Amino acid sequence: MSWKIKRHSMKETDLTNEESLFFLGNGYIGVRGNFEETYGEAIGTIRGTYLNAFHDVIDIPYGEKLFAFPDNQQKMLNVMDSQTIHVYLGEEKEHFSMTEGEVLDYTRTLHMDEGRMVREIHWKSPLGREIKVQFERLVSFVHRELFLINMTLTPMNFSESITVVSVLNGDVENYVNPDDPRVAAGEAKRLHVETLDATDECGFVRSRAENSGLEAASLTYHNTQEGKLIDLQQEDVLKRIVFTYQWQGEEGKVIDLSKRNIYVDTLRHKEDLFQNAYRLKDQLDTVEDEQLFASQHKYLTRFWQHADVEVEGDEALQEALRFNLYHLLQSVGRDKHSNISAKGLSGEGYEGHYFWDTEIYMFPVFLMTAPELAKQLLIYRYSILEHAKARAIEMGHGQGALFPWRTISGSECSSYFPAGTAQYHISADIAYSYIQYYHATGDLQFMNDYGAELLIETARLWIDIGHFREDGKFAIDDVTGPDEYTAIVNNNYYTNAMAKHNLNWANEMIQILRQEDSARFQQVEDRLNLREEELESFCIAAEAMFLPYDQERGINPQDDTFLNKAVWNFEQTPKEHYPLLLNYHPLTLYRYQVCKQADTVLAHFLLEDEADEATIRNSFDYYERVTTHDSSLSSCVFSMMAARVGELDKAYHYFQETARLDLDNTHGNTKDGLHLANMGGTWMAMVFGFAGLRIKADGLHLSPQLPEQWERFSFHLHYKGQLIEATVTKDDCLIRLVEEGEPVSLVVNEEVYHLTYDQELRVPH
Amino acid sequence: MSWKIKRHSMKETDLTNEESLFFLGNGYIGVRGNFEETYGEAIGTIRGTYLNAFHDVIDIPYGEKLFAFPDNQQKMLNVMDSQTIHVYLGEEKEHFSMTEGEVLDYTRTLHMDEGRMVREIHWKSPLGREIKVQFERLVSFVHRELFLINMTLTPMNFSESITVVSVLNGDVENYVNPDDPRVAAGEAKRLHVETLDATDECGFVRSRAENSGLEAASLTYHNTQEGKLIDLQQEDVLKRIVFTYQWQGEEGKVIDLSKRNIYVDTLRHKEDLFQNAYRLKDQLDTVEDEQLFASQHKYLTRFWQHADVEVEGDEALQEALRFNLYHLLQSVGRDKHSNISAKGLSGEGYEGHYFWDTEIYMFPVFLMTAPELAKQLLIYRYSILEHAKARAIEMGHGQGALFPWRTISGSECSSYFPAGTAQYHISADIAYSYIQYYHATGDLQFMNDYGAELLIETARLWIDIGHFREDGKFAIDDVTGPDEYTAIVNNNYYTNAMAKHNLNWANEMIQILRQEDSARFQQVEDRLNLREEELESFCIAAEAMFLPYDQERGINPQDDTFLNKAVWNFEQTPKEHYPLLLNYHPLTLYRYQVCKQADTVLAHFLLEDEADEATIRNSFDYYERVTTHDSSLSSCVFSMMAARVGELDKAYHYFQETARLDLDNTHGNTKDGLHLANMGGTWMAMVFGFAGLRIKADGLHLSPQLPEQWERFSFHLHYKGQLIEATVTKDDCLIRLVEEGEPVSLVVNEEVYHLTYDQELRVPH
Repeated sequence: MSWKIKRHSMKETDLTNEESLFFLGNGYIGVRGNFEETYGEAIGTIRGTYLNAFHDVIDIPYGEKLFAFPDNQQKMLNVMDSQTIHVYLGEEKEHFSMTEGEVLDYTRTLHMDEGRMVREIHWKSPLGREIKVQFERLVSFVHRELFLINMTLTPMNFSESITVVSVLNGDVENYVNPDDPRVAAGEAKRLHVETLDATDECGFVRSRAENSGLEAASLTYHNTQEGKLIDLQQEDVLKRIVFTYQWQGEEGKVIDLSKRNIYVDTLRHKEDLFQNAYRLKDQLDTVEDEQLFASQHKYLTRFWQHADVEVEGDEALQEALRFNLYHLLQSVGRDKHSNISAKGLSGEGYEGHYFWDTEIYMFPVFLMTAPELAKQLLIYRYSILEHAKARAIEMGHGQGALFPWRTISGSECSSYFPAGTAQYHISADIAYSYIQYYHATGDLQFMNDYGAELLIETARLWIDIGHFREDGKFAIDDVTGPDEYTAIVNNNYYTNAMAKHNLNWANEMIQILRQEDSARFQQVEDRLNLREEELESFCIAAEAMFLPYDQERGINPQDDTFLNKAVWNFEQTPKEHYPLLLNYHPLTLYRYQVCKQADTVLAHFLLEDEADEATIRNSFDYYERVTTHDSSLSSCVFSMMAARVGELDKAYHYFQETARLDLDNTHGNTKDGLHLANMGGTWMAMVFGFAGLRIKADGLHLSPQLPEQWERFSFHLHYKGQLIEATVTKDDCLIRLVEEGEPVSLVVNEEVYHLTYDQELRVPH
Repeated sequence: MSWKIKRHSMKETDLTNEESLFFLGNGYIGVRGNFEETYGEAIGTIRGTYLNAFHDVIDIPYGEKLFAFPDNQQKMLNVMDSQTIHVYLGEEKEHFSMTEGEVLDYTRTLHMDEGRMVREIHWKSPLGREIKVQFERLVSFVHRELFLINMTLTPMNFSESITVVSVLNGDVENYVNPDDPRVAAGEAKRLHVETLDATDECGFVRSRAENSGLEAASLTYHNTQEGKLIDLQQEDVLKRIVFTYQWQGEEGKVIDLSKRNIYVDTLRHKEDLFQNAYRLKDQLDTVEDEQLFASQHKYLTRFWQHADVEVEGDEALQEALRFNLYHLLQSVGRDKHSNISAKGLSGEGYEGHYFWDTEIYMFPVFLMTAPELAKQLLIYRYSILEHAKARAIEMGHGQGALFPWRTISGSECSSYFPAGTAQYHISADIAYSYIQYYHATGDLQFMNDYGAELLIETARLWIDIGHFREDGKFAIDDVTGPDEYTAIVNNNYYTNAMAKHNLNWANEMIQILRQEDSARFQQVEDRLNLREEELESFCIAAEAMFLPYDQERGINPQDDTFLNKAVWNFEQTPKEHYPLLLNYHPLTLYRYQVCKQADTVLAHFLLEDEADEATIRNSFDYYERVTTHDSSLSSCVFSMMAARVGELDKAYHYFQETARLDLDNTHGNTKDGLHLANMGGTWMAMVFGFAGLRIKADGLHLSPQLPEQWERFSFHLHYKGQLIEATVTKDDCLIRLVEEGEPVSLVVNEEVYHLTYDQELRVPH
C-alpha cells in the first residue's frame, strides 16, 4: 500500500499542490504534475518543466547598490513544455477536460516502487460521451534525457472519430509572484525559441536563454498502434509544434499513443543539440516502452533495497517516509553542473538555487543510502571552488573560499545579504559534509583529489575573517547564523563551532593524507602553497575559538548579545502573523529573542562533542521556547535533538511536523515546489534522531530508541562499502550486513561492536 | 573682498563643480550655475533647475523584498529649464560659445552681499568678432517664484546684426549615475509636458510628474530696450518654446535683454498654474529689474547683519564661512512642504531627500541666526508626524513616531535599511532640535501647538522599542547609530543617550506647559490621550537607560560589541580605497572598529552633561584613531570636540577640512551638489567649537578660545528675541546686544553674566 500515493481531488488548491507532489524527475529533468489537457481557464497553474542547473542570468535590481552586491543572479528556467495532449471526441470535437462534463471516476497514482505516475479518468462529456482516459508518465532514471507519456483512451459508449492534438510548446515563461520573497521575482520571459523544426513526424524546438546563452532543446515524437498522424504543424508565430492524430474509435476498444520527449542542453550536450537529440532518439528507438518501464522498475528496486525505511504501526508515516526519499532521489543532480535546489526539480520556488540545505539536510541521506550520489554533490561544490575563492577576495578577504549562499553556477545570487552572503557558515557546512563523507567512506583518493583543497580553502577563510580578541579568544564578527530572525551578529555559536571543526579537520586531513601517501599528497601541498605555519595557525585558531557560554542558564547563547534581547511576545502574536517574516520587518525580528529555526540546537546536533550533556539539554529547552519553526528546516532538527535528550514524545511530535509537510501542505506553499530539505530532515529525524546515528571519526554511532507509537522501524546504512540494515524494536536493535563483505565496527549505545556477514547483532535497549 | 566668490577656469572639472558652487536659490527655486549658452558637446554637465520638495514617486526595486520595505520613494525632479540663451553674431550667425573661439577675459562672481551672480566674458569669435557678454542672475529672496537673467552684449569690433535665441525647455530629465549609491538611480525621465503655450511674447510650460501627479510650470518672458522679438515658436515635438530676438548691433553700444522666469507648482499654488503664473507676472510687471536687485540686496544686508561671522587673519577661511552660510540661506525651505535636502537646491545628489542633517548640522545655524527659518524647519517635521506614526506601526511598534531616514513628503525613502530605517536616532534628533528651539527661544506657544506632541510621540517610540534587561537597565536593540560603518547593533551609545534626553524632555516639557497654562494645555493632553503613568514611564526608562561604559579604557563604547571587534587595518589600506564604502562590502566594514563619522563623539557634543570630562576626552582620542571621516558630517564634529578638549590645533585642522570642502572640492563630488550639512558644520565648528556655545535649559553657554592662526573672530547669536554679537580676541571675549531690548543672561566660562544693551561684556580668557 505505502508504495503508492493516490489522489482524487479536483479542488483547486489540491490540484496546484499536486503539481508539485506528482512531479517526476531524475536529477536532470523535472516535470511538474500538470494535466496534459490543462485545467482550462478557471484554475491557476504553474506549468513547468525544468532541467537541473539550466538557467538564465538576470540583473538584480537595488534601490541602493553597495560595493560587492551581486550584479546579477542565475534563475532556473522553465523549458519547452511537452506535457500537452488534447483529446477531442466525435464530430463535435468535444474537448476532454476534467473541469467540464462529469468525472465519473478519477485517480492519480504515484508508483514509488516503479518510478511512474498514472492518471486514470472515467469521464462523461457534456454531450454524453463516456470515455476512459489514462496517462502514464515516466522520467527515466536510466535514460536521463527521456520524458515519456503513455496515453490510452477507451471509448465506453460511442464509436466515433477521436482526435488527439499533442503539442511541443516553446512559448514558455517562468512563474512570477512579486509579493512573496520565497518565490521568484523579476522578468518571466527569459527563454527564446531559436529553432522550430517539424520533420519526419518529429518536432524539435531549440531555445536560448537571453543572457546566459545556454541552450536547451526538446525532440518530441509519438508511437501509436492504429492512430494516424493527420497533421503536423510548425507554428512559427506561436512557437510550437502541433501533432494531430486521429483514430476511428470503437466502443470498448483501447487506443494508445506514446509520446517521447528527449531533452538536451548545452551544459551537458555538445553544441549541436539537434544532432545530439536525434542520436539519443536512435538509441531509444531500439527500446520498447515496456522495457523502459521495466528498467525504471529495476532501478528503483535496487534503490529501495539500499535505502528503504520501514515503520510498523503508522501507515501515513510509512507513506511519507518513502515519498520524501523518492522525491530526493528524483531531484538530486548527478553531474558537476548540478546539485539539489531548495525545491528540487518540483518547482521554481527560490529560483532553482542551491543552498546549505544540501549539505546539512540532504547530503547525509545520500551519504548513508546512495554514497555515489553523495559524492557527486561534493564534486559539484568543488566545481565552484574557484567562484568561492573569487568571492572571498571580492568580500575583502585576503584568502580563502567563501561559498555563495544561493547559487546555481557558482556566483553569489543572494541580494539580501544579511540573510544571504552574511551566512558565512555555509563554507563550514560544506567542509563538514566533506569530513562526514570521509568518516563514512574512508575514501582517501577523493580527499586527496578534492577534499584536502576544499578543507584548506575554507579554513583559510576562517583565519582571515576571525581575529584574536584581547582575552586571547578567536572571534568571528558580523556574520549571520542559520537562524534568519537574527542577523549580523558576533560569535554566532553555530558558526564558530563549525569553523572550529573546519579548521581542526583541515589540519587533521592533511596529516592523514601525508601519512597515507606523502609523495602523492606533496603535489597537492605544492599546488595549494601549504606551509607548516599555516597548519599550525589552523590549530591555534581552533583551539582559541570563542564558543559563547552562559553560566547562569547553562546554555550556549546563540551569539554575543542574543540573551540580552527581549523575548518575543508570543502570547500577543496572532496565529495569522506566522510565518513572522511575512508580517514583520526584519529589524523587528532581529530585535527579539525569536528564532526562525534551529541554530545553536543544530550545532549541538552536528557537533555534539563540543558541549556537555547539561548544556545540550538546557539549550534545547531554552531555544525550543523561542523558536517558531517558520523555516521548514527546523522541526526535523528539534525532533533529532528531542530524541537526543530523551524526550521521545516531543521527538515524535516534531517528526510528525516534518514527515507530511508537503503531503498535507502544512506550510501552505507546496504549489511552489516541495520542501526538499525537510524531506531529507524526515529521514534524518528517523535515523539520526530515533536511531541516534552519528558519523564520527571513530565510526558510526547508534543509540536506538523506539517511539511508543510504533511497533518497530528499520532502515539502511552504507558504511565503508558495506550495506547495513538496522531494525529497532521495543526491546532491541537488530543490525546486520545485507551483503557479503568485510566486517565493520559500530558503536551502539557507546559500546563497540564488530559486525560480520555471518552474525547479525542484537543489542538490547 | 570676501563677499565675492570669483572664478575664471574653463577646466571641465571646475566647470561642473561650479555648477553647484554658483547655484542660486531662495529655498524654493534652485538653479544650477550652468552656462546660458551651454558648453557644447565636449563637456559633461548636470543642467538643473529644482523646486524644493517638488518630486515624483518612483518604485524601489528589490532583489528580495521583505516586509515593510518601502514600495516607492520620492525623487526631487529637475524642472523646466529656463536658463538657455544663445547669442549669434553677424550674418554667419556665429554662435557665442566659450569652448570655441578665444576667451580674452572671463570672470564669474557670486556676490554674496547682494544675492546675485554675474558672468562676464570678453570673447573673440573664430571669425574675429569681439564681444563682451555679461549674464547677471538673481533668484529672488523677496519674490520667491522669480528667476531673472539679465544679459548685456557689447560688440567690440563690429556693427552687425545680433540674434539671440532664448529657450524655455520642458524636455528635461534627471541625472542618473547607477554606479554611485550617493547619486540617484532609476529612471531619469519623470516629468512630462502637459501644456505648451506661446502667446503675447510669453512662453508657458506646464508639466506633470508621472506618478505623484504634482505639476510645475514656468512662465517666461523678456524685456529689452531696443531688441525685437522676431520669432516666437511653440515647438510641440521638442516640448519647448523658443524666443528669437534681433538687434542691429553697433560697435561699443550695449544691448540688453532681461529674461524673467516665474516658477509655480501645485504643492504651493492653486491648481490653475497658468492663472497663478500670470497673476504673479502682473505683480512683477510693476517692479523694475533695478528694484529687484535692490530688494535682494536689502534682504541680504539684513541677513548678514544677523548672521555674519568674521575671521581676522585668514581670507580664504573668511570667504568660506560666508559662502557656506550663503548657500544654507539659499537652500532652506520656507514652508511646511519643504526642508533642506542633503545637497540643498544645488544638485540632485541623494535625490533631494531630507535627512537628519537638518536637525544636527543645519538647524542650529538657523536657530542662532534666523530663528524664524529654524521654526519653519520644525514645522516641516510636524507636518509629517502622521507619516512617522504610521511608519512606527508598520515597523511593528504599538505606538510612537518613527521618522523616515530620508524623505521628501514624509514616507520612508531608504531602501537599504541597515543604514536607513535602522537609524532610529533620527526621531531623537528631531526631538532634540525641538528642545534646543525651546531653550533658545522660550517659545511656549510653539511648544504647546507643536512641540509637546512631537516630544510625546517620539518618546513613545523609545518606550516601545526599548526593554528592561534582567539587570534593570533599559536597552535599545538592533538599531544603527550615526556611524554607517557599523550597523544593527545593541545599545548604540548615541541612540540611547539621545533617547534618554528625548524621554526626559517629553516629561519636562509637559510639566512646564501645565504650569504655564494648564487649561490650554489640557486640550493637548486630551488629544494625545496622555496619562500620568505614561509620563512616569518616560522618567523611569530615561533613568534606567543603559549607556555603555568601558572601565578599562574609560570611554563610552559605541555599542555593546564595538570594542570586541578588530581594529581596521589602516596601515594596509591604500589611499585610493577611501571612501571605504565605495571599496568594501558593508559586512566587511561592519566587522571592524572603523567609523565613517563621529558617533559617540557626536553624542558627547550634543549631550555633554551625560559624560564626565575624562570620558569625553578619552573617547575623543579613541574614536579619532578609528574614524575615516568618509562622511562629510564628521570633521566638523571632531573640530568642535577637539576644541572642547582643549586641542586647538587639531580643532583648527578639522575646521579647515570642513570650511572649504566644496570650494576646493576635497570630496571630489561637488558637481553632484554642495554638502549642505558640512556647511552648517563649519559655522558650528566656529561657534560651538571655538566659541564653545552650548544651548541648555539654563541658557546659552560660551567658552571662547582663539586659534593661534587668527587675530580675532566674531559672530552673531539670536537668543530669546535678542541679537547678540560676540567677538573673540587673543585676550578676551567681547559680547554685546546689537539692538535695544531686554537684558539676557549668559554663562561664559561657567560664570553667569547679565548682558544689557547699555553695557557690553568683556570676559578675559
